[in-house]
Amino acid sequence: MAQGEEKAATSREGRRGREARRAQRLQARAASVPWIQRRVPTTEILSPEAIATIEANAERLLEEVGIEFRDYPSALARFRDAGCDVQGVRVRFPRGLARKLASTAPREYVQVARNPARSVRIGGDSLVFAPVYGSPFVHDLDGGRRYGTIEDFRNFVKLAYASPFMHHSGGTVCEPVDLPVNKRHLEMVYAHMRWSDKPFMGSVTHPDRARDTIEMCRILFGQDFLEANTVCTSLINANSPLVWDSAMLGAAEAYAAANQATIITPFILSGAMSPVTVAGTLTQALAEILAGVAFTQLVRPGAPVIFGTFVSTLSMQSGAPTFGTPEAALAIYGAGQLARSLGLPFRTGGSLCASKVPDAQAAYESAQTLLPTLFAGTNFVLHAAGWMEGGLASSYEKFAMDLDQLGMTHVLAGGIDMSENAQAFEAFREVAPGGHFLGCAHTQANFESAFYRSSVADNNSVEQWEAEGALDAPRRANALWKRMLAEYEAPPIDPGVDEALREFIERRKASMPDATH
Amino acid sequence: MAQGEEKAATSREGRRGREARRAQRLQARAASVPWIQRRVPTTEILSPEAIATIEANAERLLEEVGIEFRDYPSALARFRDAGCDVQGVRVRFPRGLARKLASTAPREYVQVARNPARSVRIGGDSLVFAPVYGSPFVHDLDGGRRYGTIEDFRNFVKLAYASPFMHHSGGTVCEPVDLPVNKRHLEMVYAHMRWSDKPFMGSVTHPDRARDTIEMCRILFGQDFLEANTVCTSLINANSPLVWDSAMLGAAEAYAAANQATIITPFILSGAMSPVTVAGTLTQALAEILAGVAFTQLVRPGAPVIFGTFVSTLSMQSGAPTFGTPEAALAIYGAGQLARSLGLPFRTGGSLCASKVPDAQAAYESAQTLLPTLFAGTNFVLHAAGWMEGGLASSYEKFAMDLDQLGMTHVLAGGIDMSENAQAFEAFREVAPGGHFLGCAHTQANFESAFYRSSVADNNSVEQWEAEGALDAPRRANALWKRMLAEYEAPPIDPGVDEALREFIERRKASMPDATH
Repeated sequence: MAQGEEKAATSREGRRGREARRAQRLQARAASVPWIQRRVPTTEILSPEAIATIEANAERLLEEVGIEFRDYPSALARFRDAGCDVQGVRVRFPRGLARKLASTAPREYVQVARNPARSVRIGGDSLVFAPVYGSPFVHDLDGGRRYGTIEDFRNFVKLAYASPFMHHSGGTVCEPVDLPVNKRHLEMVYAHMRWSDKPFMGSVTHPDRARDTIEMCRILFGQDFLEANTVCTSLINANSPLVWDSAMLGAAEAYAAANQATIITPFILSGAMSPVTVAGTLTQALAEILAGVAFTQLVRPGAPVIFGTFVSTLSMQSGAPTFGTPEAALAIYGAGQLARSLGLPFRTGGSLCASKVPDAQAAYESAQTLLPTLFAGTNFVLHAAGWMEGGLASSYEKFAMDLDQLGMTHVLAGGIDMSENAQAFEAFREVAPGGHFLGCAHTQANFESAFYRSSVADNNSVEQWEAEGALDAPRRANALWKRMLAEYEAPPIDPGVDEALREFIERRKASMPDATH
Repeated sequence: MAQGEEKAATSREGRRGREARRAQRLQARAASVPWIQRRVPTTEILSPEAIATIEANAERLLEEVGIEFRDYPSALARFRDAGCDVQGVRVRFPRGLARKLASTAPREYVQVARNPARSVRIGGDSLVFAPVYGSPFVHDLDGGRRYGTIEDFRNFVKLAYASPFMHHSGGTVCEPVDLPVNKRHLEMVYAHMRWSDKPFMGSVTHPDRARDTIEMCRILFGQDFLEANTVCTSLINANSPLVWDSAMLGAAEAYAAANQATIITPFILSGAMSPVTVAGTLTQALAEILAGVAFTQLVRPGAPVIFGTFVSTLSMQSGAPTFGTPEAALAIYGAGQLARSLGLPFRTGGSLCASKVPDAQAAYESAQTLLPTLFAGTNFVLHAAGWMEGGLASSYEKFAMDLDQLGMTHVLAGGIDMSENAQAFEAFREVAPGGHFLGCAHTQANFESAFYRSSVADNNSVEQWEAEGALDAPRRANALWKRMLAEYEAPPIDPGVDEALREFIERRKASMPDATH
């Protein structure tokens, strides 16, 4: 590994100048924004008293019930040293301690992309979109539902790269089930590095895989670069209720130690993994987050960390997870307030749905998640496009449709332009009562940029729509993602860096037999 | 007509006791709420300065450009007497005058339904849903797109009546094209009165038809009842830009004079009927509303009136109207602020879409309209269900799917329950870390009412969904609306009143030849 690092460090020197020039060219060309600066207010569903109640309940939960840190003795030692009451794997926090430990985490951070024009700021009023994460299956209208492959994985990376509305390349955009479990992370991280130049997420399924990700980042960005820069944001899920397990703790530790960001996220289906109420669920989520964030800050004070929540509801009839529900929306808004109160960047929401196909159910549920996600003040939106079937399938058509919704969100998040031009008083002087604004000078001067232009919606007359084949939205999206892939052009990469990445990957693959778990 | 009135007044006497008893029974049985009391905050997109700017611009527009009141000399006389500068049909308002005239309109009002348990409060924090309005076509999966009939009209009235989430029976739920233009209003109003007991809207296409509506209301509610009670809320659209025409003014005058409510609504496709910017569009809408509201208050100070806006955007490529766009959402939020600043009940939004079929486009666009509608603080939501194809078609399947979304909105609008029970601390004592909440006492005590239960969403496994026919959401909605119609039971009506209504209708029909416009 040391050899690979050396090589990377060497090739990095020669790469700097070329990359800077290329970045400049790209930046000049880029029509997209690297992230959204939100200019609309957040929705404050909880009163200040309600926030205080939930925070007090979370503290009480941490103190009286505690959190279990399983199969990870060093975490127990860290918490004991920090003043916690540790009994077996159960850690109880004196009131206020977890919050105090969490306070060293930064309010916001920059995740550097290999194309610096695509680096993202995460926190404050920023809003960063990342694709669907973790689906074992993929779905498209032609092939239906099938296991994901590394080819699908690369396709979703390319689609995310090609869209001006997706800021981040994400992580497990689908599970490449055709690769051995213990080696697929190498090809996944490589795909993000090679077929995109947007920021990305690292592997978390085993601490070794987190370390592999970090090594690959060192090859890509240079040996010393990571010490001062965050180039990776990775997803660390709690094992709710109230448990952190060793794989996640190990990965979180590896990333935090290397100054890389983690998203500390209770993944909760309310009613099964938390109480059946929004207030109870938020209480538990906050306790789990405080404990998880405290852990990262004990590893390395100041390591970037995101307050994550993934909360949805259950069908109390079938036990199936449900999405786009009003209770989930309320949890999204409420969690945002708790994150702001704690002063951390916030992750929640996305374009979630339970539907098996990209139909009206999928769209209603996704929109009913995405809009609350925006107005909850979310900074990092995983699953912003492509999520289908409760996260079991990454859908190509839904990916394309969701991208269009993200484009609209860019406009919505910008608020109402109150410039002199936007006030348009001159237009009123030009157009008399009963007149028509389409041809007036003000409209002509503004129409190009006036309204968001949907890539998916058909607004034509029914006659024209029928003449064009009477295609519904998923059929149009099918043509759209295929065109995006056909027109895809890979971002350039330094051949030496690419070679070093491939060498590292092949060496790591050769170092262990294939495994199925 | 006088004879009809007399008869109605007589039969009303005998009806009082029976109706009161029936209403009591119905009230006891009703699981639904008559309207939503919103407990979530409004989204304030515009700063106070921005509101002041738009208000100042609207005043300037009223003063410098003015509004045309066409083919309605009595309106010109009223405005001249009130201090306006009237040149031809152009009325210019001294700064502040329109606002002052509008100030006699009530901040909120009750629209009484014939079943008093279904009366709605309109204004303040209330939220009332009404169905799609004005579509010449209807659409269902079986028959496709076709002209609407009075049979379709009755069906939509029955569906609205059958849903616990629809508070209002609406107005022109589809255009009954099979009836003569000059007589269909009688059957439309009758259908609302007979096949529902929820509040409804009156005819506005001609002042005579407004007067017929009022006569029918007198028959239904009693001769004197209307003087002190509002039993009808009707839609008065401006002819934007900056024109009010005689049909609408005549209808508005008839309703206001009878103390019945009107929704003063600029219907604006931004870029064609207003400037191509949100700020410019809001300015114009406010000016048109102020003038329209002022007119109603000159007719009868204190007559209930709603600040209405219908704002959407155009495709600047094709000129086609577009819906669910971010610019429309911004206009919805902004208009709500202007309405609150003026102190009037507010109407906007709905479940709008441009799609020709109830697909993902329809659902994305509808949700992207409905959620802003809620958070804009809207009090009266026309087109809350069934709207398709830019309002050209009332869709049965979309009606059923939208009803489900309205159900969810009831929960969302309720905010987060912070009761002791909802805080759920006892559940945490019961369920250890790593445990499961599904079986715990707190969940068992709450699961029945814990989560909204969707009537349309399928949350089952893909295997079960396939075993059940792999139906997409519109196919499931198709079965749902058919079941609702099959199970529909008409609300009782006093036979004497019914007879008097039918007599009035037949007499009016006999009084004129059929007309086609």
